[in-house]
Amino acid sequence: MLIEIEGVDGVGKTTQSHLLKSWIRKEKGKKVIVVKDIDSTKVGRSMSKIIRNTKMPPMVELFFFLACKSELHSRVIKPFISKGGVVICDRGIGSFISYFEAQGFKREFLFKVVALATNNMKPIITLLLDVPINEAVRRNMKKENQSIFDKMGESFLGLQREIFLNLSQSRSWVTVEGFKTIKETHLIIRRSLSKELLI
Amino acid sequence: MLIEIEGVDGVGKTTQSHLLKSWIRKEKGKKVIVVKDIDSTKVGRSMSKIIRNTKMPPMVELFFFLACKSELHSRVIKPFISKGGVVICDRGIGSFISYFEAQGFKREFLFKVVALATNNMKPIITLLLDVPINEAVRRNMKKENQSIFDKMGESFLGLQREIFLNLSQSRSWVTVEGFKTIKETHLIIRRSLSKELLI
Repeated sequence: MLIEIEGVDGVGKTTQSHLLKSWIRKEKGKKVIVVKDIDSTKVGRSMSKIIRNTKMPPMVELFFFLACKSELHSRVIKPFISKGGVVICDRGIGSFISYFEAQGFKREFLFKVVALATNNMKPIITLLLDVPINEAVRRNMKKENQSIFDKMGESFLGLQREIFLNLSQSRSWVTVEGFKTIKETHLIIRRSLSKELLI
Repeated sequence: MLIEIEGVDGVGKTTQSHLLKSWIRKEKGKKVIVVKDIDSTKVGRSMSKIIRNTKMPPMVELFFFLACKSELHSRVIKPFISKGGVVICDRGIGSFISYFEAQGFKREFLFKVVALATNNMKPIITLLLDVPINEAVRRNMKKENQSIFDKMGESFLGLQREIFLNLSQSRSWVTVEGFKTIKETHLIIRRSLSKELLI
Protein backbone atom coordinates (compact mmCIF):
# COMPACT_ATOMS: atom_id res chain seq x y z
CA MET A 1 0.00 0.00 0.00
CA LEU A 2 1.41 3.36 -1.12
CA ILE A 3 0.46 6.65 0.55
CA GLU A 4 1.83 9.93 -0.76
CA ILE A 5 2.01 13.13 1.25
CA GLU A 6 2.39 16.27 -0.80
CA GLY A 7 2.66 20.01 -0.42
CA VAL A 8 5.22 22.80 -0.72
CA ASP A 9 8.17 22.90 1.69
CA GLY A 10 7.20 24.06 5.15
CA VAL A 11 3.72 22.51 5.31
CA GLY A 12 4.80 19.75 7.68
CA LYS A 13 5.02 16.72 5.39
CA THR A 14 7.94 15.09 7.22
CA THR A 15 6.39 15.54 10.67
CA GLN A 16 3.05 14.18 9.50
CA SER A 17 4.64 11.28 7.60
CA HIS A 18 6.37 10.06 10.76
CA LEU A 19 3.32 10.54 12.98
CA LEU A 20 1.30 8.55 10.45
CA LYS A 21 3.97 5.87 10.32
CA SER A 22 3.91 5.43 14.12
CA TRP A 23 0.14 5.29 14.17
CA ILE A 24 -0.10 2.70 11.37
CA ARG A 25 2.58 0.55 13.01
CA LYS A 26 1.30 0.74 16.56
CA GLU A 27 -2.43 0.86 16.03
CA LYS A 28 -2.79 -1.14 12.86
CA GLY A 29 0.11 -3.56 13.32
CA LYS A 30 1.45 -3.08 9.81
CA LYS A 31 5.03 -2.86 8.64
CA VAL A 32 5.55 0.68 7.45
CA ILE A 33 8.37 2.90 6.19
CA VAL A 34 8.67 6.55 5.25
CA VAL A 35 10.67 7.33 2.10
CA LYS A 36 11.82 10.83 1.29
CA ASP A 37 12.14 11.08 -2.44
CA ILE A 38 15.80 11.35 -3.56
CA ASP A 39 17.13 11.11 0.02
CA SER A 40 16.10 7.47 0.47
CA THR A 41 18.51 5.63 -1.83
CA LYS A 42 22.30 5.66 -1.98
CA VAL A 43 22.22 6.72 -5.59
CA GLY A 44 19.61 9.35 -4.91
CA ARG A 45 21.81 10.88 -2.21
CA SER A 46 24.84 10.99 -4.50
CA MET A 47 22.76 12.64 -7.16
CA SER A 48 21.22 14.98 -4.64
CA LYS A 49 24.69 16.32 -3.82
CA ILE A 50 25.33 16.97 -7.50
CA ILE A 51 22.02 18.75 -7.91
CA ARG A 52 22.55 20.89 -4.82
CA ASN A 53 26.04 21.98 -5.86
CA THR A 54 25.51 22.47 -9.57
CA LYS A 55 22.65 24.41 -11.11
CA MET A 56 21.28 22.23 -13.85
CA PRO A 57 19.29 22.96 -16.97
CA PRO A 58 15.68 21.82 -16.22
CA MET A 59 15.79 18.93 -18.71
CA VAL A 60 18.92 17.51 -17.05
CA GLU A 61 17.31 17.83 -13.63
CA LEU A 62 14.18 16.14 -14.96
CA PHE A 63 16.11 13.03 -16.03
CA PHE A 64 18.04 13.06 -12.74
CA PHE A 65 14.82 12.99 -10.77
CA LEU A 66 13.42 10.25 -12.99
CA ALA A 67 16.54 8.14 -12.38
CA CYS A 68 16.08 8.69 -8.63
CA LYS A 69 12.37 7.90 -8.76
CA SER A 70 13.05 4.77 -10.76
CA GLU A 71 15.76 3.68 -8.29
CA LEU A 72 13.55 4.36 -5.28
CA HIS A 73 10.64 2.53 -6.85
CA SER A 74 12.50 -0.60 -7.93
CA ARG A 75 14.85 -0.91 -4.95
CA VAL A 76 12.67 0.22 -2.05
CA ILE A 77 8.98 0.84 -2.67
CA LYS A 78 8.06 -2.13 -4.86
CA PRO A 79 9.89 -4.78 -2.76
CA PHE A 80 8.42 -3.42 0.50
CA ILE A 81 4.87 -3.25 -0.83
CA SER A 82 5.11 -6.71 -2.39
CA LYS A 83 5.77 -8.06 1.14
CA GLY A 84 2.54 -6.45 2.36
CA GLY A 85 4.12 -3.33 3.86
CA VAL A 86 2.88 0.25 3.79
CA VAL A 87 5.09 2.90 2.19
CA ILE A 88 4.54 6.56 3.02
CA CYS A 89 6.18 8.89 0.50
CA ASP A 90 7.23 12.23 1.95
CA ARG A 91 6.88 13.79 -1.52
CA GLY A 92 5.72 11.53 -4.32
CA ILE A 93 4.60 11.83 -7.92
CA GLY A 94 2.78 15.09 -7.19
CA SER A 95 5.95 16.90 -6.13
CA PHE A 96 7.68 15.80 -9.30
CA ILE A 97 4.76 17.08 -11.39
CA SER A 98 4.41 20.41 -9.58
CA TYR A 99 8.18 21.13 -9.53
CA PHE A 100 8.57 20.60 -13.26
CA GLU A 101 5.20 21.96 -14.35
CA ALA A 102 6.14 25.17 -12.51
CA GLN A 103 9.22 25.26 -14.77
CA GLY A 104 7.15 25.02 -17.94
CA PHE A 105 6.90 21.28 -18.66
CA LYS A 106 3.52 19.94 -19.77
CA ARG A 107 1.57 17.98 -17.18
CA GLU A 108 0.61 15.19 -19.59
CA PHE A 109 4.26 14.63 -20.55
CA LEU A 110 5.33 14.60 -16.90
CA PHE A 111 2.73 11.98 -15.96
CA LYS A 112 3.90 9.82 -18.87
CA VAL A 113 7.59 9.87 -17.94
CA VAL A 114 7.00 9.40 -14.22
CA ALA A 115 4.74 6.42 -14.99
CA LEU A 116 7.68 4.91 -16.89
CA ALA A 117 10.04 5.51 -13.98
CA THR A 118 7.69 4.03 -11.38
CA ASN A 119 6.38 1.20 -13.53
CA ASN A 120 2.97 2.88 -13.41
CA MET A 121 2.49 2.29 -9.69
CA LYS A 122 -0.16 4.57 -8.23
CA PRO A 123 -0.69 5.60 -4.60
CA ILE A 124 -3.86 4.38 -2.93
CA ILE A 125 -4.27 7.88 -1.56
CA THR A 126 -2.48 11.24 -1.94
CA LEU A 127 -2.79 13.71 0.92
CA LEU A 128 -2.07 17.35 0.11
CA LEU A 129 -1.06 19.45 3.09
CA ASP A 130 -1.84 23.05 2.30
CA VAL A 131 -0.94 26.30 4.05
CA PRO A 132 -0.82 29.88 2.74
CA ILE A 133 2.54 30.59 1.12
CA ASN A 134 3.64 33.24 3.61
CA GLU A 135 3.24 30.66 6.39
CA ALA A 136 5.24 28.05 4.42
CA VAL A 137 7.99 30.62 3.80
CA ARG A 138 8.03 31.60 7.50
CA ARG A 139 8.50 27.93 8.46
CA ASN A 140 11.18 27.37 5.80
CA MET A 141 13.21 30.30 7.10
CA LYS A 142 13.75 28.32 10.31
CA LYS A 143 15.17 25.26 8.53
CA GLU A 144 18.91 24.67 8.66
CA ASN A 145 19.31 22.61 5.52
CA GLN A 146 17.30 24.14 2.76
CA SER A 147 16.40 21.84 -0.13
CA ILE A 148 16.57 22.84 -3.77
CA PHE A 149 12.83 23.42 -3.50
CA ASP A 150 13.30 25.92 -0.66
CA LYS A 151 15.79 27.87 -2.71
CA MET A 152 13.45 28.52 -5.61
CA GLY A 153 11.89 31.54 -3.90
CA GLU A 154 8.42 32.61 -2.83
CA SER A 155 6.85 33.16 -6.25
CA PHE A 156 7.95 29.69 -7.37
CA LEU A 157 6.53 28.24 -4.16
CA GLY A 158 3.25 30.04 -4.88
CA LEU A 159 3.13 28.60 -8.37
CA GLN A 160 3.84 25.12 -7.02
CA ARG A 161 1.03 25.51 -4.48
CA GLU A 162 -1.43 26.48 -7.24
CA ILE A 163 -0.41 23.40 -9.22
CA PHE A 164 -0.77 21.19 -6.12
CA LEU A 165 -4.28 22.54 -5.46
CA ASN A 166 -5.24 22.03 -9.09
CA LEU A 167 -3.85 18.47 -9.07
CA SER A 168 -5.67 17.71 -5.84
CA GLN A 169 -8.97 18.77 -7.33
CA SER A 170 -8.55 17.11 -10.71
CA ARG A 171 -7.13 13.85 -9.37
CA SER A 172 -9.28 13.40 -6.26
CA TRP A 173 -6.54 13.81 -3.69
CA VAL A 174 -7.45 14.66 -0.10
CA THR A 175 -6.52 18.24 0.75
CA VAL A 176 -5.76 18.82 4.43
CA GLU A 177 -5.66 22.38 5.63
CA GLY A 178 -2.29 22.41 7.39
CA PHE A 179 -2.66 25.71 9.27
CA LYS A 180 -3.60 23.81 12.40
CA THR A 181 -1.68 22.25 15.25
CA ILE A 182 0.42 19.19 14.41
CA LYS A 183 -1.97 16.99 16.38
CA GLU A 184 -5.10 18.37 14.73
CA THR A 185 -3.59 17.80 11.28
CA HIS A 186 -2.54 14.27 12.25
CA LEU A 187 -6.08 13.45 13.40
CA ILE A 188 -7.54 14.71 10.12
CA ILE A 189 -5.06 12.54 8.18
CA ARG A 190 -5.96 9.50 10.29
CA ARG A 191 -9.66 10.08 9.67
CA SER A 192 -9.08 10.40 5.92
CA LEU A 193 -7.20 7.12 5.90
CA SER A 194 -9.52 5.24 8.22
CA LYS A 195 -12.54 6.18 6.17
CA GLU A 196 -11.03 5.50 2.79
CA LEU A 197 -8.75 2.55 3.39
CA LEU A 198 -10.29 0.81 6.38
CA ILE A 199 -6.83 0.11 7.78
CA MET B 1 28.60 20.55 -37.09
CA LEU B 2 28.15 17.29 -35.20
CA ILE B 3 29.96 14.08 -36.18
CA GLU B 4 29.27 10.85 -34.27
CA ILE B 5 31.62 7.88 -34.23
CA GLU B 6 30.02 4.63 -33.17
CA GLY B 7 30.83 0.99 -32.65
CA VAL B 8 31.32 -1.53 -29.86
CA ASP B 9 34.24 -1.11 -27.46
CA GLY B 10 37.55 -2.06 -29.00
CA VAL B 11 36.89 -0.88 -32.55
CA GLY B 12 39.12 2.17 -32.22
CA LYS B 13 36.61 5.00 -31.82
CA THR B 14 38.78 7.08 -29.47
CA THR B 15 41.90 6.77 -31.62
CA GLN B 16 39.99 7.65 -34.77
CA SER B 17 38.12 10.54 -33.08
CA HIS B 18 41.41 12.20 -32.13
CA LEU B 19 43.05 11.59 -35.52
CA LEU B 20 39.99 13.13 -37.15
CA LYS B 21 40.08 16.07 -34.74
CA SER B 22 43.74 16.84 -35.59
CA TRP B 23 43.04 16.58 -39.31
CA ILE B 24 40.00 18.87 -39.21
CA ARG B 25 41.88 21.42 -37.11
CA LYS B 26 45.14 21.39 -39.06
CA GLU B 27 43.92 20.85 -42.59
CA LYS B 28 40.54 22.55 -42.45
CA GLY B 29 41.28 25.29 -39.91
CA LYS B 30 38.17 24.63 -37.87
CA LYS B 31 37.71 24.68 -34.12
CA VAL B 32 37.02 21.12 -33.07
CA ILE B 33 36.56 19.10 -29.88
CA VAL B 34 36.08 15.44 -29.08
CA VAL B 35 33.46 14.61 -26.44
CA LYS B 36 33.27 11.20 -24.85
CA ASP B 37 29.71 10.66 -23.75
CA ILE B 38 29.35 10.69 -19.95
CA ASP B 39 33.06 11.39 -19.38
CA SER B 40 32.94 14.92 -20.80
CA THR B 41 30.96 16.81 -18.14
CA LYS B 42 31.51 17.17 -14.41
CA VAL B 43 28.09 15.80 -13.68
CA GLY B 44 28.54 12.97 -16.14
CA ARG B 45 31.76 11.92 -14.41
CA SER B 46 30.10 11.94 -10.98
CA MET B 47 27.27 9.85 -12.35
CA SER B 48 29.69 7.60 -14.15
CA LYS B 49 31.28 6.71 -10.79
CA ILE B 50 27.87 5.81 -9.38
CA ILE B 51 27.04 3.65 -12.39
CA ARG B 52 30.38 1.86 -12.29
CA ASN B 53 30.13 1.07 -8.59
CA THR B 54 26.47 0.20 -8.33
CA LYS B 55 24.65 -2.17 -10.65
CA MET B 56 21.48 -0.40 -11.63
CA PRO B 57 18.13 -1.60 -12.89
CA PRO B 58 18.06 -0.79 -16.65
CA MET B 59 15.34 1.87 -16.31
CA VAL B 60 17.41 3.76 -13.71
CA GLU B 61 20.47 3.57 -15.93
CA LEU B 62 18.40 4.79 -18.87
CA PHE B 63 17.39 7.98 -17.05
CA PHE B 64 20.97 8.45 -15.80
CA PHE B 65 22.28 8.34 -19.35
CA LEU B 66 19.56 10.71 -20.51
CA ALA B 67 20.53 13.18 -17.78
CA CYS B 68 24.16 12.92 -18.92
CA LYS B 69 23.25 13.30 -22.58
CA SER B 70 21.10 16.31 -21.79
CA GLU B 71 23.91 17.89 -19.73
CA LEU B 72 26.50 17.23 -22.41
CA HIS B 73 24.24 18.60 -25.10
CA SER B 74 23.20 21.81 -23.36
CA ARG B 75 26.51 22.61 -21.67
CA VAL B 76 29.07 21.50 -24.27
CA ILE B 77 27.82 20.44 -27.70
CA LYS B 78 25.19 23.09 -28.41
CA PRO B 79 27.31 26.11 -27.29
CA PHE B 80 30.35 24.87 -29.23
CA ILE B 81 28.41 24.23 -32.43
CA SER B 82 26.57 27.55 -32.18
CA LYS B 83 29.98 29.27 -32.36
CA GLY B 84 30.75 27.43 -35.60
CA GLY B 85 32.82 24.63 -34.10
CA VAL B 86 32.89 20.95 -34.99
CA VAL B 87 32.03 18.43 -32.28
CA ILE B 88 33.13 14.82 -32.67
CA CYS B 89 31.22 12.46 -30.37
CA ASP B 90 33.19 9.38 -29.35
CA ARG B 91 29.88 7.49 -28.86
CA GLY B 92 26.70 9.39 -29.63
CA ILE B 93 23.02 8.66 -29.99
CA GLY B 94 23.72 5.30 -31.63
CA SER B 95 25.56 3.92 -28.59
CA PHE B 96 22.66 4.91 -26.37
CA ILE B 97 20.21 3.17 -28.70
CA SER B 98 22.26 -0.01 -29.10
CA TYR B 99 23.09 -0.33 -25.39
CA PHE B 100 19.47 -0.08 -24.29
CA GLU B 101 17.91 -1.89 -27.26
CA ALA B 102 20.23 -4.79 -26.41
CA GLN B 103 18.62 -4.76 -22.95
CA GLY B 104 15.10 -5.01 -24.36
CA PHE B 105 13.97 -1.39 -24.79
CA LYS B 106 12.10 -0.51 -27.98
CA ARG B 107 14.06 1.47 -30.57
CA GLU B 108 11.21 3.91 -31.27
CA PHE B 109 10.90 4.76 -27.57
CA LEU B 110 14.68 5.22 -27.27
CA PHE B 111 14.83 7.61 -30.20
CA LYS B 112 11.98 9.63 -28.66
CA VAL B 113 13.59 10.05 -25.25
CA VAL B 114 17.05 10.78 -26.61
CA ALA B 115 15.55 13.43 -28.91
CA LEU B 116 14.10 15.07 -25.79
CA ALA B 117 17.46 14.96 -24.02
CA THR B 118 19.40 16.41 -26.94
CA ASN B 119 16.76 18.89 -28.06
CA ASN B 120 16.42 16.87 -31.25
CA MET B 121 19.89 17.72 -32.51
CA LYS B 122 21.06 15.30 -35.18
CA PRO B 123 24.60 14.55 -36.34
CA ILE B 124 25.49 15.57 -39.88
CA ILE B 125 27.13 12.17 -40.25
CA THR B 126 27.44 9.02 -38.16
CA LEU B 127 30.43 6.77 -38.79
CA LEU B 128 30.17 3.17 -37.63
CA LEU B 129 33.50 1.45 -37.04
CA ASP B 130 32.95 -2.26 -37.33
CA VAL B 131 35.17 -5.24 -36.53
CA PRO B 132 34.28 -8.88 -35.85
CA ILE B 133 33.41 -9.37 -32.18
CA ASN B 134 36.34 -11.66 -31.37
CA GLU B 135 38.70 -8.90 -32.54
CA ALA B 136 36.89 -6.28 -30.42
CA VAL B 137 37.07 -8.59 -27.40
CA ARG B 138 40.79 -9.21 -28.01
CA ARG B 139 41.44 -5.46 -28.07
CA ASN B 140 39.29 -4.86 -24.98
CA MET B 141 41.26 -7.39 -23.00
CA LYS B 142 44.27 -5.10 -23.30
CA LYS B 143 42.48 -2.07 -21.81
CA GLU B 144 43.28 -1.07 -18.25
CA ASN B 145 40.06 0.74 -17.39
CA GLN B 146 37.17 -1.24 -18.66
CA SER B 147 33.94 0.69 -19.15
CA ILE B 148 30.50 -0.61 -18.17
CA PHE B 149 30.11 -1.56 -21.82
CA ASP B 150 33.23 -3.74 -21.72
CA LYS B 151 31.92 -5.59 -18.71
CA MET B 152 28.71 -6.75 -20.38
CA GLY B 153 30.40 -9.76 -21.98
CA GLU B 154 30.90 -11.10 -25.47
CA SER B 155 27.32 -12.12 -26.28
CA PHE B 156 26.07 -8.65 -25.28
CA LEU B 157 28.78 -7.08 -27.43
CA GLY B 158 27.65 -9.27 -30.32
CA LEU B 159 24.07 -8.15 -29.87
CA GLN B 160 25.15 -4.52 -29.77
CA ARG B 161 27.14 -5.00 -32.96
CA GLU B 162 24.09 -6.46 -34.73
CA ILE B 163 22.03 -3.45 -33.63
CA PHE B 164 24.74 -1.05 -34.78
CA LEU B 165 24.87 -2.70 -38.22
CA ASN B 166 21.09 -2.59 -38.47
CA LEU B 167 21.00 1.07 -37.43
CA SER B 168 23.72 1.91 -39.91
CA GLN B 169 21.75 0.39 -42.75
CA SER B 170 18.36 1.79 -41.80
CA ARG B 171 19.59 5.29 -40.96
CA SER B 172 22.16 5.78 -43.72
CA TRP B 173 25.23 5.88 -41.52
CA VAL B 174 28.65 5.25 -43.05
CA THR B 175 30.04 1.87 -42.00
CA VAL B 176 33.82 1.70 -41.94
CA GLU B 177 35.40 -1.72 -41.79
CA GLY B 178 37.75 -1.24 -38.83
CA PHE B 179 39.88 -4.36 -39.31
CA LYS B 180 42.55 -2.31 -41.04
CA THR B 181 45.53 -0.33 -39.85
CA ILE B 182 44.82 2.84 -37.90
CA LYS B 183 46.03 4.94 -40.81
CA GLU B 184 43.96 3.11 -43.41
CA THR B 185 40.83 3.53 -41.30
CA HIS B 186 41.59 7.21 -40.77
CA LEU B 187 41.97 7.75 -44.52
CA ILE B 188 38.62 6.08 -45.19
CA ILE B 189 36.98 8.31 -42.57
CA ARG B 190 38.55 11.39 -44.14
CA ARG B 191 37.32 10.40 -47.57
CA SER B 192 33.79 9.82 -46.23
CA LEU B 193 33.79 13.25 -44.68
CA SER B 194 35.42 15.07 -47.56
CA LYS B 195 32.91 13.67 -49.97
CA GLU B 196 29.85 14.22 -47.86
CA LEU B 197 30.60 17.42 -46.03
CA LEU B 198 33.01 19.23 -48.28
CA ILE B 199 34.99 20.41 -45.29
